[in-house]
Amino acid sequence: MSQQENKKMINVGVIGAGGRMGRMLIEAIQDNPQTALNAAIERQGSSLVGADAGEVAAIGRLEVQIVDDLKAVINDIDVLIDFSLPAATEQNMQVCAKHNVAMVIGTTGFNEQQEQVLAKASEQVAIVYAGNYSTGVNLSLKLLGMAAKAFGTDADVEIIEAHHKHKIDAPSGTAYMMAEAVAEARGQNLKEVVVYGREGQTGAREAGTIGIHAIRGGEIIGDHTVMFIADGEVVEITHRARARMTFAAGAVRAATWIVQQPVGQYNMQDVLGLNDYI
Amino acid sequence: MSQQENKKMINVGVIGAGGRMGRMLIEAIQDNPQTALNAAIERQGSSLVGADAGEVAAIGRLEVQIVDDLKAVINDIDVLIDFSLPAATEQNMQVCAKHNVAMVIGTTGFNEQQEQVLAKASEQVAIVYAGNYSTGVNLSLKLLGMAAKAFGTDADVEIIEAHHKHKIDAPSGTAYMMAEAVAEARGQNLKEVVVYGREGQTGAREAGTIGIHAIRGGEIIGDHTVMFIADGEVVEITHRARARMTFAAGAVRAATWIVQQPVGQYNMQDVLGLNDYI
Amino acid sequence: MSQQENKKMINVGVIGAGGRMGRMLIEAIQDNPQTALNAAIERQGSSLVGADAGEVAAIGRLEVQIVDDLKAVINDIDVLIDFSLPAATEQNMQVCAKHNVAMVIGTTGFNEQQEQVLAKASEQVAIVYAGNYSTGVNLSLKLLGMAAKAFGTDADVEIIEAHHKHKIDAPSGTAYMMAEAVAEARGQNLKEVVVYGREGQTGAREAGTIGIHAIRGGEIIGDHTVMFIADGEVVEITHRARARMTFAAGAVRAATWIVQQPVGQYNMQDVLGLNDYI
Amino acid sequence: MSQQENKKMINVGVIGAGGRMGRMLIEAIQDNPQTALNAAIERQGSSLVGADAGEVAAIGRLEVQIVDDLKAVINDIDVLIDFSLPAATEQNMQVCAKHNVAMVIGTTGFNEQQEQVLAKASEQVAIVYAGNYSTGVNLSLKLLGMAAKAFGTDADVEIIEAHHKHKIDAPSGTAYMMAEAVAEARGQNLKEVVVYGREGQTGAREAGTIGIHAIRGGEIIGDHTVMFIADGEVVEITHRARARMTFAAGAVRAATWIVQQPVGQYNMQDVLGLNDYI
Repeated sequence: MSQQENKKMINVGVIGAGGRMGRMLIEAIQDNPQTALNAAIERQGSSLVGADAGEVAAIGRLEVQIVDDLKAVINDIDVLIDFSLPAATEQNMQVCAKHNVAMVIGTTGFNEQQEQVLAKASEQVAIVYAGNYSTGVNLSLKLLGMAAKAFGTDADVEIIEAHHKHKIDAPSGTAYMMAEAVAEARGQNLKEVVVYGREGQTGAREAGTIGIHAIRGGEIIGDHTVMFIADGEVVEITHRARARMTFAAGAVRAATWIVQQPVGQYNMQDVLGLNDYI
Repeated sequence: MSQQENKKMINVGVIGAGGRMGRMLIEAIQDNPQTALNAAIERQGSSLVGADAGEVAAIGRLEVQIVDDLKAVINDIDVLIDFSLPAATEQNMQVCAKHNVAMVIGTTGFNEQQEQVLAKASEQVAIVYAGNYSTGVNLSLKLLGMAAKAFGTDADVEIIEAHHKHKIDAPSGTAYMMAEAVAEARGQNLKEVVVYGREGQTGAREAGTIGIHAIRGGEIIGDHTVMFIADGEVVEITHRARARMTFAAGAVRAATWIVQQPVGQYNMQDVLGLNDYI
Repeated sequence: MSQQENKKMINVGVIGAGGRMGRMLIEAIQDNPQTALNAAIERQGSSLVGADAGEVAAIGRLEVQIVDDLKAVINDIDVLIDFSLPAATEQNMQVCAKHNVAMVIGTTGFNEQQEQVLAKASEQVAIVYAGNYSTGVNLSLKLLGMAAKAFGTDADVEIIEAHHKHKIDAPSGTAYMMAEAVAEARGQNLKEVVVYGREGQTGAREAGTIGIHAIRGGEIIGDHTVMFIADGEVVEITHRARARMTFAAGAVRAATWIVQQPVGQYNMQDVLGLNDYI
Repeated sequence: MSQQENKKMINVGVIGAGGRMGRMLIEAIQDNPQTALNAAIERQGSSLVGADAGEVAAIGRLEVQIVDDLKAVINDIDVLIDFSLPAATEQNMQVCAKHNVAMVIGTTGFNEQQEQVLAKASEQVAIVYAGNYSTGVNLSLKLLGMAAKAFGTDADVEIIEAHHKHKIDAPSGTAYMMAEAVAEARGQNLKEVVVYGREGQTGAREAGTIGIHAIRGGEIIGDHTVMFIADGEVVEITHRARARMTFAAGAVRAATWIVQQPVGQYNMQDVLGLNDYI
């Protein structure tokens, strides 16, 4: 696709274009009919600077050369997607705020100062900032809150998550987010009610507790099931990630949405409209 | 439990006390700490008139004799639960309206005139009128609407329901309600997009269709799963009924709620508060 | 059904006819077209001695009076079903051996001496002795062994069991039997490879381990899933008990089979023919 | 890995090295610690002849040049893997038989003459010939047969398969293989008992029938669940393919096995040892 045709499209820039997430973002941008890659940035000193971003992403030549300075390309884009490191994102937010370019940020681990830079930038441009860009996960969190309110502690809640055998911690961050959504809806402090695994003479189940069980095996990308077990019926909400690309596609969807929003800070549930009709 | 103690409780009457649903309602009323059975009605000519309602329900003597005239006991109750036939319910609504007794109605198949009697009675007393009194089913319908809105037609929707081998029709009424909830949220006419089973050279799946699959076997009470299958992720919402008693317990929960409401007509989603916080 | 008609049928006696399992056995015997109840025994001093066994089981009069002495009715039966306590079963085995009556034993917790009485009785009559009479559980154990041999330790094995909230220990006995079936087929000592729950910095999954996760909630009768998670595929074997009656029906099926076998000791996998064609 | 080191390894040749399956086979061969690629063959006229097979497969240079004549490399290999077309495989079988090279064949659609060439070649070399090389699918077929024998027609059998939205036929070939395994074990003719979907006034479920339900959506690679629904319990056997690579890895596993077998024709269940201990 030539840059000529891109003019009707949303022009997107990607930070960390040569990294694993950056490559998926580039592929997702080209897959989305509303967006085109128009800038690809890597850190100074990367051997990929000067290479074609499409070839690096193994999706064919895009005629977009990877550069090492955001400022050199900031005027070519409508929105910047940044899944990198806090220090880099801090600088990128300042550049975007100055040049009126919207942002989609997936960087995690901001310190207080970086949070302040984000808050200030959000007064000048529109920014989506979220820990997880999957439609399904964000939707599931909303559904869980609703289910937890409807059942109260009449239903026993148990969460089962499954991930690949290489994962070195448990439970998953998403499982914790889900447990938090349930606890919050029921007015509980998660730490006081969470139970991990059961073995031996456990006694009867304590009402109001939330069990979390971590399955590990093979190459499972990430499955989560939350069971609401009432006396005569069970409601289960399950999310299965089948491809990591789904997170990149979600970020690109956020990019198409944020370019039409007023200045401010938004999360993925705003993008998905989950906060409108609920 | 003596009628003396019942005074602090909500006194409930049951229509069709000797039928299968009536017996379960009686058990559910006695199981619920806020309610007590204080009137049990059967049709004229039933051999059970005069018997003790608790003994008929096989839960032990309750000292509540089954009678054949609602008017004879209408002043003993705060709320009447009626899962019977349209013609009988029509008369019962008029009696309740006249005596200021709230109602929980599970009767299905009203004709237009009966609908009008319902509307008129609802101007004088508080009435819950619902096709399904399960918390889980009503919750699931709400969740489905939300999921359908969030995914739009980006996700392919497939519904799998499973019931016992004796069921003579397919798909289940609940499966249709679920399909309707999805179609409505997506602005579709269900009849135009529903697909039942697939066999032969079907061609690729048409976007926007909704597949419904009816499993039959053994003594399964009723399971429903709705899958939202997006390209890289799947969200599933599952409801499993494990005991028919859950429907009776839901009706009794509705009874405890309706006695505190202003005059008007309500559904089970109102009872569960699903329409408040959404 | 009169005893006259029963003559073409297999006449069955039940120990502990007034207990919870005894009542279900009586119902299962009457449900099975090949069997009829012809003797019902309770312990001396039970208030149910003299009552009609069918009425006690709430399935209608059977004209079989509950007695307190097995010897008084031993000649009326072809096979005795005994789910009671070790001391009682020990005596019953001796009576059956002497009178040439086959047995189906579900009593657990035999000591060494009782095991010897069983071995000796098995030299004179045909006896089925099993810890679980469900077709599905016994079948599942066979399937698990086969799957474990086919995958070896190429597949990561995780077991998820779910039971009602009142259960006071974890994991379930059946979950242990399943884990043992996997470990044995892979030549492992279960104690060395079992893992219960995961929380914190667990490190990557150790090859060859078997995870067991115990869900607790509501009134779940008993579900078990064993996952074999290989790199590119997953095989799951799931058993769901939907009614406790299934265990009684299995014991009655064993009764119809054992009356045609030569003297000896058998297990439920023999009854089901699982050891023949495998 | 140099060809020097390969000498202790099993040297494998791949037909159709530049095709989609060929590339996956090459990756699977290099992933398996017992095997190394030592010959890669494409059809005459392919533009890939002369290219490095590893680079074509995008796994890095392997120093194995793609050639267009099997005879030129037949002495460099212990076993040939052939997933191509019947006419090509027919010639390859003759070459392998003449040069004493074992084969793993995944080609489908042989005519009678080609079947005869296979039979004759199997008298001179060891050949694995199978329609599906997944461990899990072959295992599942065995498990299904066993379950069907154990339950007989006491259990109602329902099969649910799920595939991506692009699939143009239904049900899947694997679903049919599974249904056949059940029907055969129960002594049934599948065509007489199969049911596809249910809608309308179906009447009660006919005993002995087998329901097959085809879910379509998203990018699901292939899931299959077979339910055995008895009155009080359910057994489910589920297979989920998570990556197409699993079929290539199975073929390579077959290659490591076949080089140690006597002359003859084998299937994947032989490779997996499923026919030994059953």
